Amino acid sequence: MSQFWSQLVHTLTPYVPGEQPKGDKLIKLNTNESPYPPSPSVQAAISAQLAADKLRLYPDPNADLLKSALAKTHQLSEQQVFVGNGSDEVLAHTFLALLKQDQAILFPDITYSFYPVYCGLYEIDYETVPLDNDFSINPDDYQQPNGGIIFPNPNAPTGRLLTLEAIETILKYNPNSVVIVDEAYIDFGGVSASGLINQYPNLLVVQTFSKSRALAGLRVGYALGHTDLIEALERVKNSFNSYPLDQLAIVGAVAALEDNDYFESCCQKIIKTRQTLTEFLQQQGFEVLPSAANFVFVRHPDYDAARLAKQLREQAIIVRHFNKPPIDQFLRITIGTDAQNTRLCDVIASLTVCRT
Amino acid sequence: MSQFWSQLVHTLTPYVPGEQPKGDKLIKLNTNESPYPPSPSVQAAISAQLAADKLRLYPDPNADLLKSALAKTHQLSEQQVFVGNGSDEVLAHTFLALLKQDQAILFPDITYSFYPVYCGLYEIDYETVPLDNDFSINPDDYQQPNGGIIFPNPNAPTGRLLTLEAIETILKYNPNSVVIVDEAYIDFGGVSASGLINQYPNLLVVQTFSKSRALAGLRVGYALGHTDLIEALERVKNSFNSYPLDQLAIVGAVAALEDNDYFESCCQKIIKTRQTLTEFLQQQGFEVLPSAANFVFVRHPDYDAARLAKQLREQAIIVRHFNKPPIDQFLRITIGTDAQNTRLCDVIASLTVCRT
Repeated sequence: MSQFWSQLVHTLTPYVPGEQPKGDKLIKLNTNESPYPPSPSVQAAISAQLAADKLRLYPDPNADLLKSALAKTHQLSEQQVFVGNGSDEVLAHTFLALLKQDQAILFPDITYSFYPVYCGLYEIDYETVPLDNDFSINPDDYQQPNGGIIFPNPNAPTGRLLTLEAIETILKYNPNSVVIVDEAYIDFGGVSASGLINQYPNLLVVQTFSKSRALAGLRVGYALGHTDLIEALERVKNSFNSYPLDQLAIVGAVAALEDNDYFESCCQKIIKTRQTLTEFLQQQGFEVLPSAANFVFVRHPDYDAARLAKQLREQAIIVRHFNKPPIDQFLRITIGTDAQNTRLCDVIASLTVCRT
Repeated sequence: MSQFWSQLVHTLTPYVPGEQPKGDKLIKLNTNESPYPPSPSVQAAISAQLAADKLRLYPDPNADLLKSALAKTHQLSEQQVFVGNGSDEVLAHTFLALLKQDQAILFPDITYSFYPVYCGLYEIDYETVPLDNDFSINPDDYQQPNGGIIFPNPNAPTGRLLTLEAIETILKYNPNSVVIVDEAYIDFGGVSASGLINQYPNLLVVQTFSKSRALAGLRVGYALGHTDLIEALERVKNSFNSYPLDQLAIVGAVAALEDNDYFESCCQKIIKTRQTLTEFLQQQGFEVLPSAANFVFVRHPDYDAARLAKQLREQAIIVRHFNKPPIDQFLRITIGTDAQNTRLCDVIASLTVCRT
């Protein structure tokens, strides 16, 4: 604390990201990274850009190459695409550009824990909407006055998916509010709402290269929506930082996007491993929420979640535990490779044996 | 414009960066990049990081490797170092964390044109302080009530340098305000105020890898100051985006920092070429402000600046013209290689001949 801080700084409760351990020995199932490397074409593209020896020059402030590739992938125009330094930066700009309104915005009470942090940063009023008892989002709960709505689909950290029909219901309830669908995990079993963009001028879809594209280390996220919504984001971005994406991130992301076969194959592998893990955990007596993401959210009637996380850690496996009711008895476990999954299952089986 | 924009978005006047032309044919002297590539060790470090095949993982959110290297270089502790996605992002966080105060902040009336844009973004009151007639900053003008002070040293786009003594004068006048010294160009002839940090808890020094380190394409900037000031920046950063620096930017910046001989040699070459260009332009009748930066700010009594910029562009040379009184008769010309400089001088000489 200091006399030199702005008033705002005193009020902030910053986000705490999952641990990034410095070492290679751990099975890292705590921050929902892909267990598979990015497409080999990413390395090739970045190496080519390095060889062109242009790092002394600023990147294209508009990242046209990437916007063009994203527009093509999602069958939209480039003016319907916004890019940023990871979807966290895209979301931050979204809160200031579109969700800072007179009325309180709405998001689920169990959801991505960065949302209330953004509200703190930009002094945005919000109300949380309880999930149903089965931890699903109920579209009917979003038929109430609001300054905007945001939720992940699939939701985090539950992994539960809303159908496109349910999302359309929310959009139809709220023609005068922006509805932000945060699709960080959509490629692991859902259908993107991006296909609805040309019908709903109030819909913004946010996606990331950090999960299904296996590029968390490169920091690239994006938003898709009506040109008016994108223009708002551009105005904020260009009042904050002209060049959020470096040269290597731009070409790397484009290469990842263009290797669709590799992308599909990784997603399918992860979905299959998720199924194997789910069945195993259920056999072990865990409750496993239905997941359409690259993680499962699980609890065990007899097992304290914090203790289980600690025991896994002792066996060199890191998972995520949110020490906050009502989810403090859950663990969020990222889907790893089959080998990592086998090790995880073996360790859990041995712990369960110890318990009895 | 749209019903979905926040009130703020309607009020913004975004920054307009210098042109980044998509082609290699031009002599690009418009955005103060280094004419020399970064240290060869940068490519090597990035290639090694790529080969380690870790892009699927998030980067270290704290960028400890880079903070540690910066702390060592500047003989400070790691807790006195903040890093961000280019100095523009660092400055943005600085405005919100330290310069959003009840009283208006102060900066020169001719200065980096992003400052008023940040004020617009964060709704910060500011007053501009006129430069002296010779376009220099007068420390005595900063002895007045204020909520904070920011200026570049050397100033942009003038290139004029303040001595450390003058900066201490400003610091002593303002023990209850934060004084931000934006040293994007300090390595081309000035002495950094970073040596004053342990004496002045109200001093924040901002630097960048985009100019003297030749890494504009990688987006790395940083701030140095008292741990309390750095903590304020960390709180804002961690309420905005956990991982602003990607894996490749972190290792590339560290490599650039560690190759001090290369860095010094590039700075010396640029200073020498600046001297050559200055003498030539003076011979041609230009007024050249004394520059301690990697650019010169010049005007000619008989030559319209916009027309001269256009004529240079027709000869494949881009310089920066700010179409805004009272500097609308100036051009800002980045120092290029000796070969680029010779070409620039030849073109200017030929234009001058045409004029008579």
